[in-house]
Amino acid sequence: MNRTDPTSLETLTARLREALGEDAVIAAPESRYHGDRAEPGAADARFLLVLPHDVEGVQATLRLAHETGTPVVSRGAGSGLSGGTVAIDGGMVLSLERLHTIREIDPLDEVAVVDAGVITADLSEALAPLGFFYAPDPASVAISTIGGNIATNAGGLHCAKYGVTRESVLALEVVLADGTLLRTGHRSLKGVTGLDLTQLLIGSEGTLAVVVAATVRIRPVPVARRTVLARFSTTAHAADGVNAISRSPVRPAATELLDSGAVADIDAHNGSRLGADPAAEAIGTHHPDGPRSSGGAVLLLELDGYGIREQTADLVDILTGAGGSVQVIEDEAEAEHLWELRRTSHAAGGGRRRLNEDVAVPKSRLAQMLTALEEIGHRHGVATSAIAHAGDGNLHPSLSLPGVPEDPSAALPAPILAAADEVVRTALELGGTISGEHGIGTAKQRWLDLELSPTSRSLQHRLKQAFDPRGLLNPGKAL
Amino acid sequence: MNRTDPTSLETLTARLREALGEDAVIAAPESRYHGDRAEPGAADARFLLVLPHDVEGVQATLRLAHETGTPVVSRGAGSGLSGGTVAIDGGMVLSLERLHTIREIDPLDEVAVVDAGVITADLSEALAPLGFFYAPDPASVAISTIGGNIATNAGGLHCAKYGVTRESVLALEVVLADGTLLRTGHRSLKGVTGLDLTQLLIGSEGTLAVVVAATVRIRPVPVARRTVLARFSTTAHAADGVNAISRSPVRPAATELLDSGAVADIDAHNGSRLGADPAAEAIGTHHPDGPRSSGGAVLLLELDGYGIREQTADLVDILTGAGGSVQVIEDEAEAEHLWELRRTSHAAGGGRRRLNEDVAVPKSRLAQMLTALEEIGHRHGVATSAIAHAGDGNLHPSLSLPGVPEDPSAALPAPILAAADEVVRTALELGGTISGEHGIGTAKQRWLDLELSPTSRSLQHRLKQAFDPRGLLNPGKAL
Repeated sequence: MNRTDPTSLETLTARLREALGEDAVIAAPESRYHGDRAEPGAADARFLLVLPHDVEGVQATLRLAHETGTPVVSRGAGSGLSGGTVAIDGGMVLSLERLHTIREIDPLDEVAVVDAGVITADLSEALAPLGFFYAPDPASVAISTIGGNIATNAGGLHCAKYGVTRESVLALEVVLADGTLLRTGHRSLKGVTGLDLTQLLIGSEGTLAVVVAATVRIRPVPVARRTVLARFSTTAHAADGVNAISRSPVRPAATELLDSGAVADIDAHNGSRLGADPAAEAIGTHHPDGPRSSGGAVLLLELDGYGIREQTADLVDILTGAGGSVQVIEDEAEAEHLWELRRTSHAAGGGRRRLNEDVAVPKSRLAQMLTALEEIGHRHGVATSAIAHAGDGNLHPSLSLPGVPEDPSAALPAPILAAADEVVRTALELGGTISGEHGIGTAKQRWLDLELSPTSRSLQHRLKQAFDPRGLLNPGKAL
Repeated sequence: MNRTDPTSLETLTARLREALGEDAVIAAPESRYHGDRAEPGAADARFLLVLPHDVEGVQATLRLAHETGTPVVSRGAGSGLSGGTVAIDGGMVLSLERLHTIREIDPLDEVAVVDAGVITADLSEALAPLGFFYAPDPASVAISTIGGNIATNAGGLHCAKYGVTRESVLALEVVLADGTLLRTGHRSLKGVTGLDLTQLLIGSEGTLAVVVAATVRIRPVPVARRTVLARFSTTAHAADGVNAISRSPVRPAATELLDSGAVADIDAHNGSRLGADPAAEAIGTHHPDGPRSSGGAVLLLELDGYGIREQTADLVDILTGAGGSVQVIEDEAEAEHLWELRRTSHAAGGGRRRLNEDVAVPKSRLAQMLTALEEIGHRHGVATSAIAHAGDGNLHPSLSLPGVPEDPSAALPAPILAAADEVVRTALELGGTISGEHGIGTAKQRWLDLELSPTSRSLQHRLKQAFDPRGLLNPGKAL
């Protein structure tokens, strides 16, 4: 990797300012530009922050980087959770945040064309009055960008039904390592002309090209939505409830599993009663073990679309049959409150050093994975809990040490690291993957060889070389 | 490209037989192995047909091809429609037809693991007793293979709702150009480890590697299905009906548009009365122009899932409001008959020289594309008709010359070629693509430069090079 010395960073600043304008280059960027939400990056890293106003500005930046051999880390909002946007000393950080125009919304074609820096929730907000929505919904939806979501192939809560980001992207506008603009894909829902560069670029974490715009698929808002809450006496029983759904024709739009630890943390943090079950008898649902006490695990589900009553009736039957104590949440405010508890669950159990992991397993293996997680925690003296997008087998184990204060800049304590290693290895042993939706970045590189064969890794490096022969785009990440 | 002379083909035959068994190599293959359903290939091409019994046999074949510099055309059932499997003189044709084991079906994980040579319909048949189905359904589903569908990223009738082949493939087992086995992807529904080689391989038409097995996603059979038939006075009105659906929250599982020419051909061929409207008044549907005569266009739709009555009621309202004369087909046998008429529509209007095209446009542009098709036909003295997977903007124009007898081995008459050229260019002008689902193969190479920039093509060749440095895998196709 080529690195520029301080002098050449100064020269570069001058040339970039000339090309992009004075305000487009910041020589001493604030700390958030050093890393992302998981990896703060080195506080003393020296790099240029480049904030182009338009696509031409991105091209000019990459042309200069190419000419001078300067590494470039591109980023959206920096909301990543795997260190994919950690700055490189002596390099540039290229932020797409000023490219935030929703260029076009076309309900008849069911597409929107957006700049990479558009906040994902802003697109959905613009679509709502038209009766449409954009399906990919990572928990970060209010702060992350479409471009960042594309770079990481972000997932979310509704993927089992609507797919991950990949399934909603039809076409891309990207800038290649030498500054050339490339358009890939198509505006029609189908298209098979040549190799699918769009799909290869999605999830490549800024290592192949810089995404500057995308044509995404939009969908009509479902005619109805219904939230269902099911409490189970143990985490394993909740996972069995997921299998019971798999055996049926019901496919919820969201199937969130909160294990007993997560439920306890959320209730303690919010003063909520997710784990309690006051209303179960009142609304007439059946629970074989009689009234429930706190401490169990929870499935929080959303149904949507036509036939919401039939869907709800079937789902209640299935979950009750699986031993759950089931509540149908008719009240919209109450439903929204429950989803808010879920979305903010990462904040629960705070005030101590914590690692939020991201693995996925074949979905029938969730119970085994969750049981293994508890065992691993016991063995290493680490507190564990997990939330899971259970419909697609993706789970986020939380590994924490209650006695150790929260300080993201300090190295993770050895017991957490050792437990994380076992968690990742267990996911692989169960036929899963080391990253379900957060990406590899810098955080997961050490496990890459466990999942990818030398043949695969060498091929991926050759593909990287085909895009970026000088190795300047986000070097040291993802691959 | 390296080619072997006849002597070396004989040497190769001996070495392949030694490695794979006597019955695995055929020196004078029957004519169907020379090409596919669209391009018969040169009758005098001299090549070896290799029929391995297992993955190791595929590896041994590619190792030998690599060692001797012999080009390899891999194929499933040869049911393609773009010349993607046309044999190369002096090369090998590697058929996956003997790898036809359904290795595993796991309803709880919602996956099946299948050999590449499994006939697509055979998988669905095996899944049916378990209450599951495999969504991708190209019209060739009864004869084409999963591997062939993956190579072309095959589409079909249900893609607007369930996605194309790409959306149903989670993992691949492929053999690289040098015979190395590579596993890509994951068994969980989510996974973002490294570059997505699975997605790059899908649709690459055998130019990057040979697919030998796949882990595919399966889905529960919907709780209900309903067929709806809507007749419109003109093709343009039927296309407007598609836009009316787009404005609503109803999303049919299939939305097939048959233009007036296709309807007339189908009725003439089958003695059916698709274009007539005997029952419209009887079942009380409203048509603003009064009783209908033959000659109109048709939308044939399938709804599925929960709330089938609400869905049907909404769809009938929408299509009636758009000027359609709508029949809900309650009788299963009648519904099956209608879908059979649709599936066999390529046989209608036969006995004359015909080209079946495949383009896609943004779906709001269907009316313009269909109008342009008629104009193009008039200008070139070519009879035109079209069927469209209207929900995703993919259409199959048929271009024929009534006076010219059917003979697939003869060159296409100049007026058909000239009309096809205009059809493809019009699709591109409307923001569409030169191939919606059939692929590029040899048939569409001449239009590649109209859709793909020099930057894109050069990048695709570098990617090809990264996979296949000697250029032996399906050379001269797709790219």
